[in-house]
Amino acid sequence: MRAILKPAPRKGLEFQDIEPPKPGPGEILIRVLRGGICGTDLHIYDWDKWARGRIAPPVVIGHEFMGVVEGWGAGGGRYSAGQRVSAEGHITCAACERCRTGEAHVCDSTRILGIDTDGGFADLVTVPASNVVALPDSVPDDYGALLDPFGNAIHAVVPAQVAGRSVAVVGCGPIGLFAVAVARLAGASRVIAIEPVAHRREMAAELGAHLALHPRADDVQAEVHRLTRGHGADVVCEMSGHPDGIRLSLDLCRSAGQLRLLGLPENPVEIDVARSVIFKGINVQGVVGRQMYDTWDAALRFLEGGKIDLGPVITDRFPLEDFEYGFGKARNGDAAKVLLALD
Amino acid sequence: MRAILKPAPRKGLEFQDIEPPKPGPGEILIRVLRGGICGTDLHIYDWDKWARGRIAPPVVIGHEFMGVVEGWGAGGGRYSAGQRVSAEGHITCAACERCRTGEAHVCDSTRILGIDTDGGFADLVTVPASNVVALPDSVPDDYGALLDPFGNAIHAVVPAQVAGRSVAVVGCGPIGLFAVAVARLAGASRVIAIEPVAHRREMAAELGAHLALHPRADDVQAEVHRLTRGHGADVVCEMSGHPDGIRLSLDLCRSAGQLRLLGLPENPVEIDVARSVIFKGINVQGVVGRQMYDTWDAALRFLEGGKIDLGPVITDRFPLEDFEYGFGKARNGDAAKVLLALD
Amino acid sequence: MRAILKPAPRKGLEFQDIEPPKPGPGEILIRVLRGGICGTDLHIYDWDKWARGRIAPPVVIGHEFMGVVEGWGAGGGRYSAGQRVSAEGHITCAACERCRTGEAHVCDSTRILGIDTDGGFADLVTVPASNVVALPDSVPDDYGALLDPFGNAIHAVVPAQVAGRSVAVVGCGPIGLFAVAVARLAGASRVIAIEPVAHRREMAAELGAHLALHPRADDVQAEVHRLTRGHGADVVCEMSGHPDGIRLSLDLCRSAGQLRLLGLPENPVEIDVARSVIFKGINVQGVVGRQMYDTWDAALRFLEGGKIDLGPVITDRFPLEDFEYGFGKARNGDAAKVLLALD
Amino acid sequence: MRAILKPAPRKGLEFQDIEPPKPGPGEILIRVLRGGICGTDLHIYDWDKWARGRIAPPVVIGHEFMGVVEGWGAGGGRYSAGQRVSAEGHITCAACERCRTGEAHVCDSTRILGIDTDGGFADLVTVPASNVVALPDSVPDDYGALLDPFGNAIHAVVPAQVAGRSVAVVGCGPIGLFAVAVARLAGASRVIAIEPVAHRREMAAELGAHLALHPRADDVQAEVHRLTRGHGADVVCEMSGHPDGIRLSLDLCRSAGQLRLLGLPENPVEIDVARSVIFKGINVQGVVGRQMYDTWDAALRFLEGGKIDLGPVITDRFPLEDFEYGFGKARNGDAAKVLLALD
Repeated sequence: MRAILKPAPRKGLEFQDIEPPKPGPGEILIRVLRGGICGTDLHIYDWDKWARGRIAPPVVIGHEFMGVVEGWGAGGGRYSAGQRVSAEGHITCAACERCRTGEAHVCDSTRILGIDTDGGFADLVTVPASNVVALPDSVPDDYGALLDPFGNAIHAVVPAQVAGRSVAVVGCGPIGLFAVAVARLAGASRVIAIEPVAHRREMAAELGAHLALHPRADDVQAEVHRLTRGHGADVVCEMSGHPDGIRLSLDLCRSAGQLRLLGLPENPVEIDVARSVIFKGINVQGVVGRQMYDTWDAALRFLEGGKIDLGPVITDRFPLEDFEYGFGKARNGDAAKVLLALD
Repeated sequence: MRAILKPAPRKGLEFQDIEPPKPGPGEILIRVLRGGICGTDLHIYDWDKWARGRIAPPVVIGHEFMGVVEGWGAGGGRYSAGQRVSAEGHITCAACERCRTGEAHVCDSTRILGIDTDGGFADLVTVPASNVVALPDSVPDDYGALLDPFGNAIHAVVPAQVAGRSVAVVGCGPIGLFAVAVARLAGASRVIAIEPVAHRREMAAELGAHLALHPRADDVQAEVHRLTRGHGADVVCEMSGHPDGIRLSLDLCRSAGQLRLLGLPENPVEIDVARSVIFKGINVQGVVGRQMYDTWDAALRFLEGGKIDLGPVITDRFPLEDFEYGFGKARNGDAAKVLLALD
Repeated sequence: MRAILKPAPRKGLEFQDIEPPKPGPGEILIRVLRGGICGTDLHIYDWDKWARGRIAPPVVIGHEFMGVVEGWGAGGGRYSAGQRVSAEGHITCAACERCRTGEAHVCDSTRILGIDTDGGFADLVTVPASNVVALPDSVPDDYGALLDPFGNAIHAVVPAQVAGRSVAVVGCGPIGLFAVAVARLAGASRVIAIEPVAHRREMAAELGAHLALHPRADDVQAEVHRLTRGHGADVVCEMSGHPDGIRLSLDLCRSAGQLRLLGLPENPVEIDVARSVIFKGINVQGVVGRQMYDTWDAALRFLEGGKIDLGPVITDRFPLEDFEYGFGKARNGDAAKVLLALD
Repeated sequence: MRAILKPAPRKGLEFQDIEPPKPGPGEILIRVLRGGICGTDLHIYDWDKWARGRIAPPVVIGHEFMGVVEGWGAGGGRYSAGQRVSAEGHITCAACERCRTGEAHVCDSTRILGIDTDGGFADLVTVPASNVVALPDSVPDDYGALLDPFGNAIHAVVPAQVAGRSVAVVGCGPIGLFAVAVARLAGASRVIAIEPVAHRREMAAELGAHLALHPRADDVQAEVHRLTRGHGADVVCEMSGHPDGIRLSLDLCRSAGQLRLLGLPENPVEIDVARSVIFKGINVQGVVGRQMYDTWDAALRFLEGGKIDLGPVITDRFPLEDFEYGFGKARNGDAAKVLLALD
């Protein structure tokens, strides 16, 4: 079958023809129709420090995807052949304290598709049946491939209970853009996007941001205070991973407000803990993965309701063979989500 | 000044010219512009059992209203003359355990405007400064007079965290209709209204209900299950106060779901506690008044955002002198909210 | 092997020698050392209306037990032979919305050991590996057999966050007694037990109740108000299932307090919903089973800490052969938990 | 009257005879019986950078105290003469969004007794009636003076819901020691204290810590993992304010655990946000002041229950005249809480 993989411990990826996987006991075999390039995939391409420490080539990459059920191993017959599905990429142990108490998203034994085991940028991929999520007819293929990062945004925004509250989103890559959309959908009364790239600010506005600001060209603090009766935002979603973004987020958060940290900074960050966290009495939540499987349920329900249009976030698409084109696009500041189309 | 009052312990109300109130220490004098007739006002008119046990005439009625600040007593100068305001009708003691721990809405010493003390169906009313809520310019007068029942709906719906969830609203009087609107606004993926009066079902649909059902003519259980993947609603808001409405609400609520009880039944209700509450592991919350003052903040923010149109709920209006006309309208099944206009 | 079973659809149980079970794929075979008689077992013995509608004889009864691992089926080798274990008796589907979102305790497809499938009152029993819970050395065999009802009490008390609060427990059967102990352990400042049987009131006092009252001979309302600054209890645990117990619980609960309903009334109960639930703004939670598996973790940690002595709740024990003696004891008002000892 | 005050913008304090305060409208005049030296008082003595930027001499210091009601201004007659009371030191505006929504502890207009206005290290002090807290007979004078820091510990520990969970306390000054006691009281199954001073480790053990470790001499990480089944602590309370303490706290916190930050670092702290907060999915809460007035209620209830003995935390006492002795003691590593006794 066709696949994009990291063939060896060096920079770059390769398009190859490889042996298709066979589903083991309790596994589902999925024929992939759509994939999405994530920032993690770029790190793997670049073979950066994180990738070198984590990846053991050869491995097929890709953890955002959807497709149709092609077959299954013993005991995996929960879905029907041809059924449209997506899948959670975190394969967890099901036996540890975290997994058994509703916190599987931080299972210490997590193996991630496309990182620790062969992923979805290929014609076929195998996934444990418990990780598979059926797609309703009303959810189009493209959106089905976005459920992983859309779920990240839901996991960041929804538990903060934003109905009737103000939300600032710092950093508008795909997950930040989804966070803007989710905040509006969940009833936030003010949504303020902060993002340096003009095209992404436009997308944020299209997805419902009341205001889209440049982190340096605009007086962000003054504008946020103007829209929040001088208090700061009730909820701030940090999606940039930039040290300045994290510090700005702390400054924009009102006293007793909530900061949702999702963007991953490369290095330790200097934080004025006394002034920014303790005296303000704020709550900071590290956001990783998605709640398994509450987030998936919520994602599908949001999409089924039809109130949300994720279309503006999809800026490009490419066939498997042209992965270099797709990865090039994905590095472009003007792009948001770049989709792989296999059909 | 002009006022509608219960002059003596008997059925009916009277339009009279009475002495205007003077604001005491810490009180605000408000010139009323708009009022809203609540079911409680009808009970007072009818001088039913509850009214006879609670009301000590003479008393000016009315607890839903807005107006402009006309003056204040010593220490009450927190607002400016002419400022547009509404007010929380529950005057609480500020000193008891409930008041001091964020639960003032169930203060045992609560006195209610228009019930225990002169209310707002008059040219002027006095209110403790802490009960006054300033209205932003963007909130029109009519909506300012609806903040009390709109707040009931918010207090019922928002704490149930409905984003991405299904909500059934049983009973679509004004608060039920507001609950439909709030559920949509707060991101509910499915909102199902259940109400016997056709015109109210139409209003529910106009306010965003995905489906509006008749409690007996339609197969409510089957329809709710159809829209909720066979589980029942995640959240049910009981707004009818009818014993059958309460039992239907329990039946519609999915296992481990939430029932929000606001409608007041006149008599004890027979409930199958084992089957409907315990085996299903559901959570039932008695909803009374509004969170003071989180709910008011949320109400104003929802309205400021401009995403919600309360207009369809207002079905009639009347001048102070024609209160009999207004009260007659308010008893009409086709009516929802009937407004008093003093200007 | 030896077993106590319901052999046919009629009153009574039988001690028989039957074929031992064989563990299927993913199952653990447990040699039972201790069992506990639950009220449900008495219903099965009596072949009452509930039992007739639910049980399909022949079936080995018993869902409270502990023992040692004797073997396992394919893929079930998570535990070692001879390891001391207990088990959750609710076998859930793992695939439904409830199971996948942390609410497996209300899975619609639940099958219960000793009710829907052969249980633990026998030399050997098979259980899915995911239901097995390893026992630390510090937890004695007797206590290991009590984890199911002890978990019911934890599930009722701990989520109500009782630290520094007052707790009333209405009904002191074994789970009520455990609730008294758990409330003290979790920092309740006042624990008041209400129970008609004198010996059980004594056990409640021994387990830490500050006050143990008779529901009719004592002026319960006055005493609870005396100990709670006139407010009523912050949290009330209804463990009796008696209609009067449920109404008393509502009366004892302070405004904005919490009622935890666990005791199962046989018939519908008449409740003054307006006065007892809505005007008081209380929260009522139906408590069923145990959180899977948060409750088990908490139970083991409480026991490991050694701060809690469940001993007083164990009033009798009997060998498998003398089950009639044990069941007779379990019906005695003076008894609390009656243990089956197989070793 | 006698008072300890900062007379002028320079290092040190003075014992002086000054005019007694007169209670204004709504204020209570309290005759002080006991005071407690807080770290803040040492900063004021030292006239450090923070003190220079905040304090406007002359000001009577002291915000931890108890006494008896001596009189009151107009409208302040809520308490009786001679009644034993303590008081919340944060005087808040009651009118802002924070104050009106249950978050008065982060009111932007807070004025603190003994910092922004004359405090309690004097024979007499005036306090708004709403800040006064009546002491039950069962709470001794000494403990009444400790309610402010004891409340800090409650505010840090109790909302984290520690029943049946493991808690690590990093830094055992008085508030850290109280946190150890509160964690045990609230049912924590494991409490591990981390503190470099031997005498404080002994006090921690006396107050209920299962283990008391030296942050460098002991292998803290290994020991905490040993006691928490290899996971790390469910809840970590950072009470040291030391950058290494904050980083250690992050390391000790299990995935999806909770970090409660109370100790105030002087300078910005470098934090590995990706590894320590985001990937672990932990929740960090800045803890400031006390919940007004839930925390006070909980504090009094814990003390009334009599299950907690704060005695070991009181290491010294001094009369008003010998404040230099008292402040000297308070700087001593072996000391915990040093009390001022005026009677």
